[in-house]
Amino acid sequence: MKETVQSAVVGVTGYAGAELARLLLHHPRLRNTPPVFAGRIDAKDQARGGVPLTEIHPQLAGSLAAHCKLEPFTWELLAQRGVEVLFLATPHEQSREWVPEALRHGLRVVDLSGAWRLIEAANRAVYKFEDENSETAVATQAAAVYGLPELHRAQIAGAQLVANPGCYATSVILAVRALVAAGVVDLDHGIIADSKSGVSGAGKTPTAKTHFMYAADNLSAYGVFSHRHTGELLEQIGLDNSQIVFTPHLLPIPRGILSTIYVRFSSGQTAESISQIYRDFFAASPMVRWHGTILPQIQYSAHTNYADIGFHLAGDGRRAVIVSCLDNLLKGAASQAVQNLNVMLGWNEAEGLE
Amino acid sequence: MKETVQSAVVGVTGYAGAELARLLLHHPRLRNTPPVFAGRIDAKDQARGGVPLTEIHPQLAGSLAAHCKLEPFTWELLAQRGVEVLFLATPHEQSREWVPEALRHGLRVVDLSGAWRLIEAANRAVYKFEDENSETAVATQAAAVYGLPELHRAQIAGAQLVANPGCYATSVILAVRALVAAGVVDLDHGIIADSKSGVSGAGKTPTAKTHFMYAADNLSAYGVFSHRHTGELLEQIGLDNSQIVFTPHLLPIPRGILSTIYVRFSSGQTAESISQIYRDFFAASPMVRWHGTILPQIQYSAHTNYADIGFHLAGDGRRAVIVSCLDNLLKGAASQAVQNLNVMLGWNEAEGLE
Amino acid sequence: MKETVQSAVVGVTGYAGAELARLLLHHPRLRNTPPVFAGRIDAKDQARGGVPLTEIHPQLAGSLAAHCKLEPFTWELLAQRGVEVLFLATPHEQSREWVPEALRHGLRVVDLSGAWRLIEAANRAVYKFEDENSETAVATQAAAVYGLPELHRAQIAGAQLVANPGCYATSVILAVRALVAAGVVDLDHGIIADSKSGVSGAGKTPTAKTHFMYAADNLSAYGVFSHRHTGELLEQIGLDNSQIVFTPHLLPIPRGILSTIYVRFSSGQTAESISQIYRDFFAASPMVRWHGTILPQIQYSAHTNYADIGFHLAGDGRRAVIVSCLDNLLKGAASQAVQNLNVMLGWNEAEGLE
Amino acid sequence: MKETVQSAVVGVTGYAGAELARLLLHHPRLRNTPPVFAGRIDAKDQARGGVPLTEIHPQLAGSLAAHCKLEPFTWELLAQRGVEVLFLATPHEQSREWVPEALRHGLRVVDLSGAWRLIEAANRAVYKFEDENSETAVATQAAAVYGLPELHRAQIAGAQLVANPGCYATSVILAVRALVAAGVVDLDHGIIADSKSGVSGAGKTPTAKTHFMYAADNLSAYGVFSHRHTGELLEQIGLDNSQIVFTPHLLPIPRGILSTIYVRFSSGQTAESISQIYRDFFAASPMVRWHGTILPQIQYSAHTNYADIGFHLAGDGRRAVIVSCLDNLLKGAASQAVQNLNVMLGWNEAEGLE
Repeated sequence: MKETVQSAVVGVTGYAGAELARLLLHHPRLRNTPPVFAGRIDAKDQARGGVPLTEIHPQLAGSLAAHCKLEPFTWELLAQRGVEVLFLATPHEQSREWVPEALRHGLRVVDLSGAWRLIEAANRAVYKFEDENSETAVATQAAAVYGLPELHRAQIAGAQLVANPGCYATSVILAVRALVAAGVVDLDHGIIADSKSGVSGAGKTPTAKTHFMYAADNLSAYGVFSHRHTGELLEQIGLDNSQIVFTPHLLPIPRGILSTIYVRFSSGQTAESISQIYRDFFAASPMVRWHGTILPQIQYSAHTNYADIGFHLAGDGRRAVIVSCLDNLLKGAASQAVQNLNVMLGWNEAEGLE
Repeated sequence: MKETVQSAVVGVTGYAGAELARLLLHHPRLRNTPPVFAGRIDAKDQARGGVPLTEIHPQLAGSLAAHCKLEPFTWELLAQRGVEVLFLATPHEQSREWVPEALRHGLRVVDLSGAWRLIEAANRAVYKFEDENSETAVATQAAAVYGLPELHRAQIAGAQLVANPGCYATSVILAVRALVAAGVVDLDHGIIADSKSGVSGAGKTPTAKTHFMYAADNLSAYGVFSHRHTGELLEQIGLDNSQIVFTPHLLPIPRGILSTIYVRFSSGQTAESISQIYRDFFAASPMVRWHGTILPQIQYSAHTNYADIGFHLAGDGRRAVIVSCLDNLLKGAASQAVQNLNVMLGWNEAEGLE
Repeated sequence: MKETVQSAVVGVTGYAGAELARLLLHHPRLRNTPPVFAGRIDAKDQARGGVPLTEIHPQLAGSLAAHCKLEPFTWELLAQRGVEVLFLATPHEQSREWVPEALRHGLRVVDLSGAWRLIEAANRAVYKFEDENSETAVATQAAAVYGLPELHRAQIAGAQLVANPGCYATSVILAVRALVAAGVVDLDHGIIADSKSGVSGAGKTPTAKTHFMYAADNLSAYGVFSHRHTGELLEQIGLDNSQIVFTPHLLPIPRGILSTIYVRFSSGQTAESISQIYRDFFAASPMVRWHGTILPQIQYSAHTNYADIGFHLAGDGRRAVIVSCLDNLLKGAASQAVQNLNVMLGWNEAEGLE
Repeated sequence: MKETVQSAVVGVTGYAGAELARLLLHHPRLRNTPPVFAGRIDAKDQARGGVPLTEIHPQLAGSLAAHCKLEPFTWELLAQRGVEVLFLATPHEQSREWVPEALRHGLRVVDLSGAWRLIEAANRAVYKFEDENSETAVATQAAAVYGLPELHRAQIAGAQLVANPGCYATSVILAVRALVAAGVVDLDHGIIADSKSGVSGAGKTPTAKTHFMYAADNLSAYGVFSHRHTGELLEQIGLDNSQIVFTPHLLPIPRGILSTIYVRFSSGQTAESISQIYRDFFAASPMVRWHGTILPQIQYSAHTNYADIGFHLAGDGRRAVIVSCLDNLLKGAASQAVQNLNVMLGWNEAEGLE
């Protein structure tokens, strides 16, 4: 087991990138090997080489980040610095291009985009990848492991490429997979996942929908029957398209996701039987907090690295409402990436995250 | 048809009361007969007699409210002023007590509380009314008409007592009743109503849950399988308890409700077949805006007197997501009360509301 | 006195334009002469001709706006419709170009931009107008009246061109001018105006600073010693640059301005002497609400057409803190424009605004 | 120098208490000596003995807080556990009573309330302490050191009682003291401190002013010419009452303070001369980030342990606007308390805070 590792973060200028930088700089194993930081691999960010990280993210804490600067990305830079693990907090188009290249350079990659998460071509169709059928893309996808440690710990440990899950997907899969795996859910009846996310999930680029005047004092549903994270739900929970309806909403808050999930059981359950299923499923998972019949709220997990899950059971024992919360920038992105790093290197899964 | 009417508002010190005062003061038919205003019938508000309305609600517009004062409530006061219609924006305990008395005085009443909305004793149980089985209560309930003009216009016109609907209930009933009435919904499969409300719905009394620090940057589900408005959904949509799950959430915004509703159809539908059902149902309803396949947002209806409804249909034609928005203080309370007044007096239903 | 007038609004697609449309559609004098509506005079908005106004601003109330459509702007269109008054809710660059043209067409103009507000060339320098020294510009500026009815009622009545004031400027001038005019302020000591505005003041174009993630849970000062509204303060209050410091801040709310203003008096004052000055100054001004020693808050004036002003006096009688609030889209823009219209046409100044 | 110390936190149920618990649990020196936690010393909190800390503050991170429970406060408990340092995050009335008792028990105390911050009786008058003239109170006050390490590092190191500063006071003193100490400020002209704070500063008890509906979409000034923190400004900056006006405002955000401060210089300054004064003053102060002519914003310091300070100088070199930001629960309360602990024990002042 390595004591430490040299890493690099590409896309540190975005919201998830900033959180990733913060977590890696404070990670006990990385104290003496701070990451190499680069912006997105585009003209604007490449030109920002030498800019102090704290100028871009002023809230990044003092002394640790004080001397970190943005560096223009090149493969030579990574080689010179001995980088072994590469985090890509980049748009999926960039990740489609750079991940195969990174693998050719022998790097291990944690990709935070949606580029390599989906196994089935049908589920990938929504992304309209230009290189969908190229030999490289097929091989890269085959090498990718879906980076949800609670489901795929062993494969992540040995993976060259970890596809860090979507924020909504993490929230719903963690809430539902235990029950489906236990065989208690009436899948023919179907599952409803009504999710609500803070605005940071929409990214840093100013658009009509991220304008304060659009989001504030508002709530809006979007991507109904068509959101990109749906494929992750189908593949990771084990459902076909008729068995789940997933509706995301834009919340007027900076960060946090709450998913309200409706399931029907094949046979009557008790609060205890349901709780037991979750406790067993997450027994070895330090980043999930099981709340039993207490319903978590967004504030429980905001600014933390945890997913929080609780539920209520109807009096008939046949229907349940499950509530799942996480911070979309942390367990939904950056801290999940660090959790994957820990698993990849054989470290304590929660190291640097508590 | 009367040209005007003398009204009184009890409970004008609360949020719904303030909106009701504003609407009545600006109502074209009431220009020369401003309402009598009283606070809640408790020691604190009774002692505020003579206090200018604008001191309690400083945002109430200038000249119209300038001379309005809070008056200590007595039945004699109402008689002296010739009050014919009484609005009660009071807690349900007060309304249980005062509505029968008001009817005895020959007043017509619009009660904004939950005191007289529910027909079935089983659905009322959640309120734990002390006078549940009294002769007066039974008779009063029998006289009450559920004040949703879009469903009960004719009965409201002749009613002595109108029970103004709950805000969540209005939002869900308006979104679902048309489809259920048309017989297209698979009721055995059940309906999911995932509702989100701004904080004004929780009332003006400071509590742990209305504290800014609790509500801001947060979202929380509450009243799961147990919220008081559930009975209204059952009775007005025509469902039994196994056919709907209703989950309210507290949104970090001052006002507005958005309900995301999931239904399954007994047979395949098209966007046009669904739209036709709604258009027919709301043909004579000026306060509902039908958006077709555009999904309304909370900002569409906030600070307006309208309910906004739209939907998306799944590709299979069997499942739909319906989104319904309204301002909980207006179409969910005060403007609905004025709409009921208009219907009761034979006026244009939208008068003073557009 | 005309009974009504045909108007047109250019720039109805923006925030102030939407409020202006709402106010004009509900104005009692304009019921039967709804305005002609046009977007900005640019390719994007011109191409939106025929688009319903309610599609652009879904919250615009039902029946009145139901049949209004955006029309591509031409001078012929205005002539055909008999337009006599033109509202320009456009960027100052557009207003510099179109106002002289409108005057040539014999229209009376209310311009909501900063194009024609400033009398002194030195104060205009910050705008860097390209046509600064053109004959047309000089003549147009000479014809312009600063559209603050509380100061210039008589000139506005006869004006061909009314330059509607800036939102911050309105807030500060109304709070300070009365005291300066009364000669009680120690001008050598100087005035501090610390102003805070909601995000709608920054306009509808998405930028890094209007991104929800920038504005929410934040407060930031900007334009320190350099904000464009400073010139309006100097000219309208009657100060030189050394006598006032004006600092605007961006508040995490959609709308509303609060200015906290610090003055020192040349001689000792009492609460009553100060109140008397304000009461006298605003005796004929229906859109200013004087609160005496109660300090108004943003909620008092948000969504209203009023400016609210109050103050506290230090124990020494020599220093005062004045607080001034208004809705930046209403008294800071759209309702002020309607107030100017009322004055221009000899109507009741508050008509359609209460 | 001690390697570690046993501490206790009284009042851990409040907002500052929660942050203090989080910081102490993660402090490298306290890993193996977690604090003793108690609620307020009142009936309600005393009855909560045994309640897990994470039940009261669900967002408190996983494993570290997992086994911490609230304990009913007694002096015996502290003695049994070997407590040497006591943090009081309690109302000032409680601190007035319990601090002298703690000192009698030989404890070192960091008191987060306003009970012991003020040296001058005149400045304390606003608190109306019942024991103002008691011998104990006089002796206790004499022993107290004002806990702003940037000003009083040496005295704090040896103090038995550290009076942790007010949040507003920290924000203003840090911004102004350097300039006043350097003798460049025209004190006769006076200083204006216009401060804005998030709602957590108002405490956890639900009141009309902490209601979401009061604070949201609002801004309000309060305590004008009368706020309790004024005395701290006078004593710590070195001013008399005529030399500063301090106006606090309630911001619609959970946490963070921004103070906009206006000073006039006795003689002309340059940006560099001012910067040099601050750099010298804070040379040994790791928890202050000097931004020069970049103005910090609330987001810079929210959720961090730092104070951020920057300024703009007028063209005349005689007037400056200084902007100072901090998190009212951290550098304005809890992290300042930990910083004081570090100084008291001779540890690195920033330990556990970066």
